[in-house]
Amino acid sequence: MIDIREKYDVIVIGAGHAGCEAALACSRLGLNTIVFTMSADNIAFMPCNPHIGGSSKGHLVREIDALGGEMGKNIDKTFLQSKMLNTSKGPAVHSLRCQADKMEYSKEMRKVLEAQDNLTIKQAEVSEILFEDYNDDGYKKIITGVKIFSGMIYEAKAVILCTGTYLKSRCLTGESITYSGPNGLLPSNYLSESLINAGILLRRFKTGTPARMDGRTIDYSKMSEQFGDDPVVPFSFDTDAADVQKPQVSCWLTYTNEKTHEIIRNNIDRSPIYAGIIEGIGPRYCPSIEDKVVKFPDHERHQVFVEPEGTYTNEMYIDGMSSSLPEDVQLAMYRTVPGLENCKIVKNAYAIEYDCLCPGQLSPYLEIKEIKGLFSAGQFNGSSGYEEAAAQGLYAGINASMQILGKPYLNIDRSEGYIGVLVDDLVTKENLEPYRMMTSRAEYRLLLRQDNADIRLRKKGYEVGLIDLERYDKLLSKIEAIDNEVKRLKNTVVGANSKMQAFMEKNGSSPLKTATSLAELICRPEFSYETIAEIDTDRKELPSDVIEQVEITIRYEGYINRQERQVEQFKKLEKKLIPVDIDYNDVGSLRLEARQKLEKFRPTNIGQASRIGGVNPADISVLLIYLDSLYRGNKDEN
Amino acid sequence: MIDIREKYDVIVIGAGHAGCEAALACSRLGLNTIVFTMSADNIAFMPCNPHIGGSSKGHLVREIDALGGEMGKNIDKTFLQSKMLNTSKGPAVHSLRCQADKMEYSKEMRKVLEAQDNLTIKQAEVSEILFEDYNDDGYKKIITGVKIFSGMIYEAKAVILCTGTYLKSRCLTGESITYSGPNGLLPSNYLSESLINAGILLRRFKTGTPARMDGRTIDYSKMSEQFGDDPVVPFSFDTDAADVQKPQVSCWLTYTNEKTHEIIRNNIDRSPIYAGIIEGIGPRYCPSIEDKVVKFPDHERHQVFVEPEGTYTNEMYIDGMSSSLPEDVQLAMYRTVPGLENCKIVKNAYAIEYDCLCPGQLSPYLEIKEIKGLFSAGQFNGSSGYEEAAAQGLYAGINASMQILGKPYLNIDRSEGYIGVLVDDLVTKENLEPYRMMTSRAEYRLLLRQDNADIRLRKKGYEVGLIDLERYDKLLSKIEAIDNEVKRLKNTVVGANSKMQAFMEKNGSSPLKTATSLAELICRPEFSYETIAEIDTDRKELPSDVIEQVEITIRYEGYINRQERQVEQFKKLEKKLIPVDIDYNDVGSLRLEARQKLEKFRPTNIGQASRIGGVNPADISVLLIYLDSLYRGNKDEN
Repeated sequence: MIDIREKYDVIVIGAGHAGCEAALACSRLGLNTIVFTMSADNIAFMPCNPHIGGSSKGHLVREIDALGGEMGKNIDKTFLQSKMLNTSKGPAVHSLRCQADKMEYSKEMRKVLEAQDNLTIKQAEVSEILFEDYNDDGYKKIITGVKIFSGMIYEAKAVILCTGTYLKSRCLTGESITYSGPNGLLPSNYLSESLINAGILLRRFKTGTPARMDGRTIDYSKMSEQFGDDPVVPFSFDTDAADVQKPQVSCWLTYTNEKTHEIIRNNIDRSPIYAGIIEGIGPRYCPSIEDKVVKFPDHERHQVFVEPEGTYTNEMYIDGMSSSLPEDVQLAMYRTVPGLENCKIVKNAYAIEYDCLCPGQLSPYLEIKEIKGLFSAGQFNGSSGYEEAAAQGLYAGINASMQILGKPYLNIDRSEGYIGVLVDDLVTKENLEPYRMMTSRAEYRLLLRQDNADIRLRKKGYEVGLIDLERYDKLLSKIEAIDNEVKRLKNTVVGANSKMQAFMEKNGSSPLKTATSLAELICRPEFSYETIAEIDTDRKELPSDVIEQVEITIRYEGYINRQERQVEQFKKLEKKLIPVDIDYNDVGSLRLEARQKLEKFRPTNIGQASRIGGVNPADISVLLIYLDSLYRGNKDEN
Repeated sequence: MIDIREKYDVIVIGAGHAGCEAALACSRLGLNTIVFTMSADNIAFMPCNPHIGGSSKGHLVREIDALGGEMGKNIDKTFLQSKMLNTSKGPAVHSLRCQADKMEYSKEMRKVLEAQDNLTIKQAEVSEILFEDYNDDGYKKIITGVKIFSGMIYEAKAVILCTGTYLKSRCLTGESITYSGPNGLLPSNYLSESLINAGILLRRFKTGTPARMDGRTIDYSKMSEQFGDDPVVPFSFDTDAADVQKPQVSCWLTYTNEKTHEIIRNNIDRSPIYAGIIEGIGPRYCPSIEDKVVKFPDHERHQVFVEPEGTYTNEMYIDGMSSSLPEDVQLAMYRTVPGLENCKIVKNAYAIEYDCLCPGQLSPYLEIKEIKGLFSAGQFNGSSGYEEAAAQGLYAGINASMQILGKPYLNIDRSEGYIGVLVDDLVTKENLEPYRMMTSRAEYRLLLRQDNADIRLRKKGYEVGLIDLERYDKLLSKIEAIDNEVKRLKNTVVGANSKMQAFMEKNGSSPLKTATSLAELICRPEFSYETIAEIDTDRKELPSDVIEQVEITIRYEGYINRQERQVEQFKKLEKKLIPVDIDYNDVGSLRLEARQKLEKFRPTNIGQASRIGGVNPADISVLLIYLDSLYRGNKDEN
């Protein structure tokens, strides 16, 4: 063999949503990076639904953007429809969601990667990770590179596993099993064994996707049309709003019915899941239509959204009806849905099963605890969803870079971002099924809004080096403008004079009893920042994003303050660090289950420890007493 | 199983260049057609070079267009550079070649298919052909449909096999073998066995493709820039020339050298072909770089064209250096080429091996002789090249349709088109390697020019129903205009007067000796239709395509007439039909080899018989005598 050793700082395995963010982060931080993909023509491919964002996922995209990631910018370039969800509810659960043109999304992301300095793309199957013994800082091994299927060795200081659903994957449609990755792409068949040989524990998860229909065979007159927003709000804090105003495509809403459910029930024994063929565990919060029918026998119907895959095809995605039933059952079942009576399936629905990481092996920086330099992100870590994957990819990419650069790790805790919640949940919980982000998982969700992701996280992006000074300065100016305007509104008082009472009456609001600040007026449900303009003659014109923050700050001040006090308590526990070399056998009166769980997850602080399933408050008290004695002991020794 | 039987008139297996033309032809002829593809996202995918056309292949594209096919129209929409090759030679070998944007080419063809009435696209692996016994017209079986991998049955009256390189394919790069189709797509693993069970004989062929380089790592200053034509000539007779004038991208020319060849020679034992790992036989006229180096040891260098894959990527195709050497050898070898010293390979070069048809099983209409309704086209028939595939796809699609519609088959003979040469060669020859079209294969190539493909074949396209009346009328007007103008030029005579002699002298031509026709003037090399305009004051303004035909007709009249006389001889033999049920054992003094070959290929006429390898003129005489006696005998009986 000719001795050509290709040397990089970082190797990223996989160029899906996690891999793209990881590779971009590392190369943008100045590290020489290579990303391996099974198919360079399917970079940032969306194998399942054709949308980015949605409830809580929209938050993740905004946070990725705040930190300097690419997903938000890319969907701003390639969306077909944009909608802010849940606008009838409070701002904590507002979530932006975009329908993507799948091909354009992939193409534009590929262009970004191809134009990125320090970044090389290589289509090849990585078959082995290479490592050496290393005993320090709690590690047992250190990564040295990878071997690819051609036999070539690529050396690196860090490797980031972003293998998605490709590891030993197989696709199931009823009785027929294809050993492939999603959508007819090749699986990665060799890497799993190498990971197992490195001491990593793997398990099988599964997920699924619905059929894609020939759009010409759908009768949209029987469905309800779903429009996008006007005006559109961009995902990225750096996108000019004017650039995202464009004609949008529609989606369509229809429903299953009793006939649909009957066909499913009559053929449930032919589902590979119910027949026991599938070993992997699927996502609870993204169930197949057969799961819905079986688990909710009383539901008379389920929502079905019919969504375009892109402008390059007339294929339509049948959201809400993922399935692994056989093709004949699929045809019969879909054809019971109003509008789909004469549908033709271009691509059958299928379930896909793949290898991923067992819980308890990840550090809070998404590094495999025992192997220095081996990071992982996305579905390999047991999550589901493009946005969850991208968030982890960015996080792992930044932290791999920080390790190589000898800088402090990026840490985002549960009070700072959905990314913090996501990573913490993946690191501290068993997660018996693919993990999906949800607003209900965030304790401090009034603080972790999608609208303030820049205020929460852009500073961190600037500190790690992914946000440049110009963009950071822009944020600082925005924050200053918000603060000034909130202060001005609190300090500007209107008297209870006849002119004001007429204004109040005109707007259906009760009369003022005393002199009142403009901020107090805004808190009345009848008023908004905009509607008090008439009596606020001193105001300067402000950008809409500043006004939005001003209004939320004023209206929700009480709730926000209360959550901020909770966060202080939370932070105290996060700061109580647990030594990496703690021996839980030394912690006398710890219950056996708690001892086992703590041993498995080896939390870095008391906060983390308290969130591990099977560790209860009494165990935490015992642990705190032990740590106190330990630190006192250490102090006594000095 | 739920009894859902999907019924179609025609099933096309594969949506590559053959499959697309076949499916479009059948559906446009009113037949309810379904095309199965392993990947609907890779319809009309170009797995190897990024161009359409070129020497003799450009002729095929023009002929496809004349008959009502799609390839020419699609490349007119999606080309990046266009060039008429061999313009310094005679019109017979002029060939149009376009660099394609691969993604756009695929996307536009997909749109055409998706918009086509009567045409359904289905992503699924066909695992079995279904047939019944049938003893009539020389058939032994009749096709009834296919079974796909999901278990579903699709019924049809005809099935067209367009499986390309996907049947049991495997890709080889040195020692590493991947069981996949081209470019990481899934292979078709089950259909081969079903074909063998139906009595069809298969063999292994191989082809290969060079590496794709990261364009940013190429130093173009060391290469010579290759520009497109200005103005561009469209491929399709229906494309408005104005629509194809646009900015073009460049290609680049460089060369291998002794250092390149040395690396190849030193590592030739690691080539899977030379190591005996590959069973399949590769295309002689499209050899790998290692084949060139081994077979032409005296060549100091070989041409290397560096061509863009499309605007969606910076990947560059390294034309002329296809290889199946291991990755390390590839890197070392490519890096010896000027401009590629620091290249990075995005996709390794590889060889691909696949199942295809053994010769002797095809009718002149591309039907499998023994199975009624089973047609085949493209690489499955043993050819190579997108254009060869598309031509066959169109031909098989039309003839499958004609069979179902009960109309006469389309027949294009060797004197009528390159398609005729291609089909005849595939039907009558052993073709021990993938068959590539070449101008030298066409005996009557002065007649079969790319410029007159419409005049030669559009009538046939109109008769089968793929060319509408409007387009056909346009052609008739064009032919009339050509004839009239030729006549006028022959009948318009200029005298040997002083004004004319001055004109002759000015143009460096010898003086006229007598009154001379304008046609005779044009035959002088100093003149052209354009340059005699000054003295041809009666001429009307004519379209450039008419002028082109007028000039060629006048200049090459003698040669054309001679070839036309040869064609008459050829046609006589083509009209001497051989009965389908002939028993060659009855033909007394036939040599054994001729008997065996005739039995294998079972030609439909004497012309075909005369072109079968191993059948010599003496055998043909014997056969003619036998047929004479046979027909006389028959006549006597009546």
